[in-house]
Amino acid sequence: MTRQQLIQQIYEKSSFLCVGLDTDLKKIPQHLLKEDDAIFSFNKSIIDATAPYCVSYKPNLAFYEAFGVKGLISFEKTIKYLKQNYPNHFIIADAKRGDIGNTSAMYARTFFEEYDVDSLTVAPYMGEDSVTPFLGYEGKWVILLALTSNKGSQDFQLTADTTGERLFEKVLRVSQQWGTEDNMMYVVGATQGRMFEDIRRIAPNHFLLVPGVGAQGGSLEEVCKYGMIPGDCGLLVNSSRGIIYASNGEDYAEVAAEKARELQQQMEKLLK
Amino acid sequence: MTRQQLIQQIYEKSSFLCVGLDTDLKKIPQHLLKEDDAIFSFNKSIIDATAPYCVSYKPNLAFYEAFGVKGLISFEKTIKYLKQNYPNHFIIADAKRGDIGNTSAMYARTFFEEYDVDSLTVAPYMGEDSVTPFLGYEGKWVILLALTSNKGSQDFQLTADTTGERLFEKVLRVSQQWGTEDNMMYVVGATQGRMFEDIRRIAPNHFLLVPGVGAQGGSLEEVCKYGMIPGDCGLLVNSSRGIIYASNGEDYAEVAAEKARELQQQMEKLLK
Repeated sequence: MTRQQLIQQIYEKSSFLCVGLDTDLKKIPQHLLKEDDAIFSFNKSIIDATAPYCVSYKPNLAFYEAFGVKGLISFEKTIKYLKQNYPNHFIIADAKRGDIGNTSAMYARTFFEEYDVDSLTVAPYMGEDSVTPFLGYEGKWVILLALTSNKGSQDFQLTADTTGERLFEKVLRVSQQWGTEDNMMYVVGATQGRMFEDIRRIAPNHFLLVPGVGAQGGSLEEVCKYGMIPGDCGLLVNSSRGIIYASNGEDYAEVAAEKARELQQQMEKLLK
Repeated sequence: MTRQQLIQQIYEKSSFLCVGLDTDLKKIPQHLLKEDDAIFSFNKSIIDATAPYCVSYKPNLAFYEAFGVKGLISFEKTIKYLKQNYPNHFIIADAKRGDIGNTSAMYARTFFEEYDVDSLTVAPYMGEDSVTPFLGYEGKWVILLALTSNKGSQDFQLTADTTGERLFEKVLRVSQQWGTEDNMMYVVGATQGRMFEDIRRIAPNHFLLVPGVGAQGGSLEEVCKYGMIPGDCGLLVNSSRGIIYASNGEDYAEVAAEKARELQQQMEKLLK
């Protein structure tokens, strides 16, 4: 999916919501466990219920890998279901990969050729040759970790060098020599508040994937105030647990839809 | 496996060799492709041939994930085969994972409970809560990226802060508050030469996993000169392509054994 197509989706649906499919058998409604593939059944219902209110889905690979081969089959089925039924939704494989060049090339093949998702989250620690193998695919995106939503983001990402540049700022600056605003986004946690001003100083035009609204406590208003690009939006705001686990009764899909719709309505106002 | 058990294996076998199982269908002998599970067949032969000369195996997940569900089954079978037949070999899942706390906890469950490997490589960018979920398993290890073997290691890992401390040094120093020399190792590329002196100044007692000997051009002598811990060894030196793809004819396993034996004999001298 191109940047222009994504922006079009956002304004057509008045939503820049990404629904995180962090599907955990311990947390889904227990009546689903009698199904053959409970993870996929859950995802399918959540997707059908929330699709009108979001523009993107983000399965986190950890939750699928935790169930080994069976989990990976559920992941594959989820991607296929999305591509067949909701081809305009932007699919993010949240895998935080990154390795030496020939190994990153293998990961790129897996996610962009085998699974054919739109984008993959990538960790920057290993530098240029760990990231560039993901950039050679038309219409595919790298979403590079910059300033994450967790407490541990303070351990290394905020460390300033001798010129005063912090690590996340260096990641933002240097990686712009590798990719463009048409094939690279950045992860910035919603919990980072006014830091979005610093992000936008360095990366004024790149889309940001913003986790951390909801369970992690980030504020949607603040993210938009400091992070939105007028006219282009430039944000994909993710909510996982706050939507998909809002109810664990038989009404889980309806309640997920309500929660997604609430966020979409807030986003509609913020987009204006 | 405990640190003491690993050290014992190293001195019993006069080897600190780790064989990297980066098994790629495009590179293995083509006569294997007619087998049901060519990846596993290849791994099994390589393992049987090289086991006397090494103390560790390191499958890189990227190479298995590239073949989707089928690849993951090959990975599982490889781990089971190792655990049943070579229970004293230290198994490293080279996956370079790392995510927010609850997600890292899922990865930890996958690798340490489902697959039951001895250790997992982890990327430090997201800080403490992305690493500590892996540390709660007895006899299991985190192998944290510090100074990697690739060219991109220069992009961020060498950046010095206002006190002169470089990022990889900060990773080494700060992470020692999270884990100990009994459950944490560090990845340091063999291509880093004298930098091992700097590493040992900060982490004198931790084991180092050292890739980059062979195809990537690192020197075993230099690694040992600056990185070895007298009496404890403190090194696991990995070779992947230089061993497993030394021949792609029918003699691939024999040639792999020869290459592993050559390295083992060099290691035997260096251990003295």
